[in-house]
Amino acid sequence: MLPGMPESHALRRVALRELLRDANLDALLVTDLLNVRYLTGFTGSNAALLVHGSDSAGAEDRTVFCTDGRYLTQAGEQVPDLNRVIERASAAALAAKAGAEAAAYRRTGFESQTVTVDGLGSLTSAAEGVELVRAPGLVEQLRLIKDDSEVEALRMACAAADRALAELLANDGLRVGRTEIDVARDLENRMRDNGASGPSFETIVASGANSAVPHHRPTAKALRAGDLVKIDFGALVDGYHSDMTRTMVLGSPADWQQELYELVRSSQAAGRAAVAVGAEVRAVDAAARGVIEAAGHGEHFLHGLGHGVGLEIHEAPSLSKAGAGRLIAGMAVTVEPGVYLSGQGGVRIEDTLVVRDGEPELLTLTTKELVVV
Amino acid sequence: MLPGMPESHALRRVALRELLRDANLDALLVTDLLNVRYLTGFTGSNAALLVHGSDSAGAEDRTVFCTDGRYLTQAGEQVPDLNRVIERASAAALAAKAGAEAAAYRRTGFESQTVTVDGLGSLTSAAEGVELVRAPGLVEQLRLIKDDSEVEALRMACAAADRALAELLANDGLRVGRTEIDVARDLENRMRDNGASGPSFETIVASGANSAVPHHRPTAKALRAGDLVKIDFGALVDGYHSDMTRTMVLGSPADWQQELYELVRSSQAAGRAAVAVGAEVRAVDAAARGVIEAAGHGEHFLHGLGHGVGLEIHEAPSLSKAGAGRLIAGMAVTVEPGVYLSGQGGVRIEDTLVVRDGEPELLTLTTKELVVV
Repeated sequence: MLPGMPESHALRRVALRELLRDANLDALLVTDLLNVRYLTGFTGSNAALLVHGSDSAGAEDRTVFCTDGRYLTQAGEQVPDLNRVIERASAAALAAKAGAEAAAYRRTGFESQTVTVDGLGSLTSAAEGVELVRAPGLVEQLRLIKDDSEVEALRMACAAADRALAELLANDGLRVGRTEIDVARDLENRMRDNGASGPSFETIVASGANSAVPHHRPTAKALRAGDLVKIDFGALVDGYHSDMTRTMVLGSPADWQQELYELVRSSQAAGRAAVAVGAEVRAVDAAARGVIEAAGHGEHFLHGLGHGVGLEIHEAPSLSKAGAGRLIAGMAVTVEPGVYLSGQGGVRIEDTLVVRDGEPELLTLTTKELVVV
Repeated sequence: MLPGMPESHALRRVALRELLRDANLDALLVTDLLNVRYLTGFTGSNAALLVHGSDSAGAEDRTVFCTDGRYLTQAGEQVPDLNRVIERASAAALAAKAGAEAAAYRRTGFESQTVTVDGLGSLTSAAEGVELVRAPGLVEQLRLIKDDSEVEALRMACAAADRALAELLANDGLRVGRTEIDVARDLENRMRDNGASGPSFETIVASGANSAVPHHRPTAKALRAGDLVKIDFGALVDGYHSDMTRTMVLGSPADWQQELYELVRSSQAAGRAAVAVGAEVRAVDAAARGVIEAAGHGEHFLHGLGHGVGLEIHEAPSLSKAGAGRLIAGMAVTVEPGVYLSGQGGVRIEDTLVVRDGEPELLTLTTKELVVV
């Protein structure tokens, strides 16, 4: 099923209702826009959704979507299957609706991780007779496990990034004298040419000593012969984010560059091999980190191994020393070890993968051989 | 003075302290990132600022900036003039700091318009002994009036947009057969070539009947001879947003297009003429709206006349029927009437201006004559 099909959104609402019953809630007022999108397919900039939790047939009838007049037509097209209300103050309008039928919405959860203190004030005044209950992270719990339509969107996003990088290289886009900014823009335009609505975050192009800065922003520095060039980028397709890093060399690599590259490549392979259903996220981090520590570079691996990816570029789970919990089939995660030698250069290699029974599914397919440009 | 100079940020903190004393607050915990940027110049993605409100010389010494380890170097460069703490949970770290010296931070305000319900929970646990007081919109009050460095950034952003549009037209970028998406991307790239870090919002290119949709998103529809082409776009420079709309015609304009254009142009001129120190924002809207209503098109002007612009693309004041208050010298606002004939086409003309004693200062300088391409 393709992303944006109402059926998959209806199934997500069914899954949410189970969580509501577990939390002893009559309903959930969803105000986080990404969560509204996840549950309805709506992509506008103002919306809220009141999901009734009953397991009876009437639950969908009592579920109401709200947006403002700018999106009247769009809401009809994207959310044809739900009751719709048109009001500028979308969250307050739905809170008032719950208040008007307080007996059916007695305990209504709200997303306390995103509702502001002032916002809760407005909701409370609007929802008279309703107990508004903190209910953080319920939809996020569902979003941890990607369904088929989400994986398809991630796959398309990763493919747009793969193709953009291949085209960049094929067109001599990475060459001595070009600036980091030029390379970043070229890559972003090529992602759009390949179906992305835009980059999934600000593209990192870091050359020479800049490659030792984990989150370097591209500058007007020109690429030079002998530079390591680290490129961390992704495409946005249907709201889903891809994330990939490759590090290349301009001209023939020095020994230290080759050694550094091989080290990170082994670490990344070990990390990917540890991605399995039931694996502790900390153990996955440790599998990759161990390789780098054994080579004496532990202190030069400055960040966690990876993170979940989906409607946000960074979401749960966190694959890091401080992470908690285990991998579940259907999670989409990055694996991205790096070693950074300050003032000299750094290498990071990153893939986006989906956790599966057996081998994980690799979504970023660009080679991890050392590419010498 | 150029944006990003510590002196102008220090002056803003001085102005904030006056508001704190009026509100009987010992300090303000600033957690909105744009507000932190406004008060310090810091541009990273994680930061908080605890501004002590004392009018004594020690106020700056008690003012503390916090960000995480990724931004250690950047914080030293951008915020050299303040005490700095490095902690991942920046807001909670500063709340704890207030708690550790509770006698000096007894009544500390927090930005209840952006702090989430869960966030306030963390701050409250961290700031033991401190009364955390709702203090929404204090920094926003200062941001209403742009200082010289802000106007200079807006001027540069408007100039980048002006030049990008001029280059687009000079290079035959608006021609029959080109798609809306292609035109939008071309324009965005040209803004970057002219010093913008990016577009200030998703560029609107709306041709033919699409021009009647106020917030149309560019599609793969090709421009056709006889189309009205409405382009609403802006550049981002140093964090400041420009905003301009021009409507052009491909080929010689039909009578109805010319009439519609002249109507909107008169309305826009009337709106600009009403922009003056002391004018009620409602009256400015009415001045432009009256022209359109007198021509019998009141119902086809579907939105407010304009909005403030600065570190956000939409900020206070709102120039609309529902707006309240009066214009003050130094406010930056847009004036953008439009008439939209559904299924046929629409015209919008928009400038960004700064309210001044006497005539407002026009920042978007592209001609408002009907451009026939």
